[in-house]
Amino acid sequence: MKKLLTGLLLVSTCSVWCMAQHTVTSPVINPDKSVTFNYYNPDADEVVVKGSVAPARTLIRTKLGNITKSRSLEMKRNGDIWSCTTDPLPSELYTYYFEVDDDDDSHVIDPANPNVIRDIADSLSYFIIDGGIADDYITHEVPHGSISKVWYPSTLNGMTKRRMSVYLPAGYKNNPSKRYPVLYLLHGSGGDEDSWLDSGRAVQILDNLIAENRCEPMIVVMPNGNVELAATPGQDPANPGQKPFGNNAKSMLGGIESAFMKEVVGYVDSNYRTINDKSHRAIAGLSLGGLHTLFISLNNPDKFDYIGLFSALPDSPVNDRKAGNMPVIADMWNELKDTFPFLGGSKADKKLSNITSVNPSIYEDVDGKLSTMFSNPPKLFYIAIGQDDFLKKANDDLRTKLNVNGYKYYYNETDGAHTWENWRKYLVDFLPRLFAK
Amino acid sequence: MKKLLTGLLLVSTCSVWCMAQHTVTSPVINPDKSVTFNYYNPDADEVVVKGSVAPARTLIRTKLGNITKSRSLEMKRNGDIWSCTTDPLPSELYTYYFEVDDDDDSHVIDPANPNVIRDIADSLSYFIIDGGIADDYITHEVPHGSISKVWYPSTLNGMTKRRMSVYLPAGYKNNPSKRYPVLYLLHGSGGDEDSWLDSGRAVQILDNLIAENRCEPMIVVMPNGNVELAATPGQDPANPGQKPFGNNAKSMLGGIESAFMKEVVGYVDSNYRTINDKSHRAIAGLSLGGLHTLFISLNNPDKFDYIGLFSALPDSPVNDRKAGNMPVIADMWNELKDTFPFLGGSKADKKLSNITSVNPSIYEDVDGKLSTMFSNPPKLFYIAIGQDDFLKKANDDLRTKLNVNGYKYYYNETDGAHTWENWRKYLVDFLPRLFAK
Repeated sequence: MKKLLTGLLLVSTCSVWCMAQHTVTSPVINPDKSVTFNYYNPDADEVVVKGSVAPARTLIRTKLGNITKSRSLEMKRNGDIWSCTTDPLPSELYTYYFEVDDDDDSHVIDPANPNVIRDIADSLSYFIIDGGIADDYITHEVPHGSISKVWYPSTLNGMTKRRMSVYLPAGYKNNPSKRYPVLYLLHGSGGDEDSWLDSGRAVQILDNLIAENRCEPMIVVMPNGNVELAATPGQDPANPGQKPFGNNAKSMLGGIESAFMKEVVGYVDSNYRTINDKSHRAIAGLSLGGLHTLFISLNNPDKFDYIGLFSALPDSPVNDRKAGNMPVIADMWNELKDTFPFLGGSKADKKLSNITSVNPSIYEDVDGKLSTMFSNPPKLFYIAIGQDDFLKKANDDLRTKLNVNGYKYYYNETDGAHTWENWRKYLVDFLPRLFAK
Repeated sequence: MKKLLTGLLLVSTCSVWCMAQHTVTSPVINPDKSVTFNYYNPDADEVVVKGSVAPARTLIRTKLGNITKSRSLEMKRNGDIWSCTTDPLPSELYTYYFEVDDDDDSHVIDPANPNVIRDIADSLSYFIIDGGIADDYITHEVPHGSISKVWYPSTLNGMTKRRMSVYLPAGYKNNPSKRYPVLYLLHGSGGDEDSWLDSGRAVQILDNLIAENRCEPMIVVMPNGNVELAATPGQDPANPGQKPFGNNAKSMLGGIESAFMKEVVGYVDSNYRTINDKSHRAIAGLSLGGLHTLFISLNNPDKFDYIGLFSALPDSPVNDRKAGNMPVIADMWNELKDTFPFLGGSKADKKLSNITSVNPSIYEDVDGKLSTMFSNPPKLFYIAIGQDDFLKKANDDLRTKLNVNGYKYYYNETDGAHTWENWRKYLVDFLPRLFAK
């Protein structure tokens, strides 16, 4: 077949019709929900499948986190095709890639699978197993909201504008006098305004929950929370060649949080039919976005009635300088930095300008700000964390502080670690709790 | 380094921070605009770079198209890293992938490059060389329009809705009484409502040309023209697992064209501030989208003053049944079908329902419809085609027919073939000709 194609390639420049030359089918979801991967590679000595389909196992738990062992699914050769079949899989959105000959760097997306998600700087193949939790992640025959990518004025770091994604629920256009509550939904370190759309399946989750009357119709705003970049990779005019990078430490210096109410909320309230008050405004974020969520709400205690921390970094590394709270955060940070020199490393060009939008004072006086916030408490202060998350201890410390002071919160402790599997679940759990009538 | 990571992988479940483990930088754009690719693969015997960065060369031209020889850039091994450097490259958006050990199926996107475009079913790494034509494809510091993904009601094939992408120019929101002309911009076979956004760089092109006053501010509507799927892969509720496929022959049976005015144009005129008349409405499409463009406009001669055929399929295969016009189309189609069994093949699940929205009568009486259209001619009938395009001869036949009848058109013959390089250029050339005051 291959030789035939090469010989007869009359129209090899026909990029529309002629690129799909791969002859294996992969992945194949079998009737019992096991999944078979097939990969054509005649010359490999070993191929394994990695990714969320084969998550790491926890071996030892330590105060700094857990020691895990990466797993992988071994593929077996049959002629030129490598294959393996999983056990029957629970319903979930799974990501995966092939690793060839035991090299960490041979990150190969499945050539036979067109479904690819970018997570920070890595492309990952994905598939969905239905029949359970992932049913909320699938596009169903329900009324669909729209998603817009818009630019809003911003003066962060000498920028003139930044980009956000905005979800408008089904019916928004046809009900021109109706006003809606708003959820601000923030990404993690390395993410951008596409993260909740791509890995987070936010549009599908919102369409489905709203259609089934499991949550209120709402506007959902997903801004870019990386202070160094105005938009997703390739879209920032000031940094056209900039690649995404995991370490957004400069986004932990107060700039994002300080500008948020004026720039992000101000723009949304001016340009969409929002209900502009505390009881119709929610904010939630994962990891770094949890840090932003906490300090945006602590510094604006009369603005958000619903606050969600998903696997949050629950205090700023800045605070550690003052013999501060939750030193585990700084320990972890240094541990990460020393152990993983690639953090903010290989994929990040170091051409970014210095950060001028710095305001660490917003991280000061956490105790006082918590006291103020809980003197007129939000209707929901939501904390979700996985038992294996490296931020579990830090979240425990935050809960201890809340408990000591009698501040009420809702706590959702789950299996698992710092993963999109958990963040999607947290969103599905969080949304029905918002804007109750 | 790798062994260290494996040994110390304390937080290996930390998907946000810990995935970027690759240590090479690629691609590197050198000061002279040559490009160096680096790829870590200790076990390969041979690695080459393929893609638009190494386009096929034409060896022999035939009446059915051209016989081409695929080129590739050979990489040389240095330790575990394979590298090669191109000649200095002209300004362009280039796609590429790595092929290992001479296997067509070893389609590897560059693990070090997060910038990936999906073209039909294939993921391709890409980069941009500035300093020329590709400057129009880069996001610059100019006012930005917004892009929305919206669902509109549709009854095609028992669907209830289909999805379109809508570009609103900068200023649309801030000028609530201003009305705008509309361009309907259609994709090719295998494409969807994302194609002009991703491979076509339509948003960047529009932002830049509007900002430089090189074209009028306009609304641009990019619907999904695949009659079998309501939306881009994974988003069609009726076909959640459907993969994209190159052969959209069922979208050449009249269904898309017949529903277009009522469903697509009707929705847009009802939901956006359009100027709803012929002189403020344009339509253009590439390849299959050129077929749609031609027959939507021929069957609605009073609706479009600007018509653009970009490498168009300029007549329907349906017409060949009647000893018809331009038999070269059918010849080519059969040639493709016989030569390339994978067309509509390996990547396409054959679970799609039968096509009920069929209306081949719209392809009838081309001569009469041309005569009617040109009795009150459009302000612009634009034909663009590459000299090496397999549809060149068919477009020559269409031009012969127009010439014989004295119907005026604008003709843009370029180098190259059936490629996104050409379609981006055609869009940049076409836009300034629209809606002249």
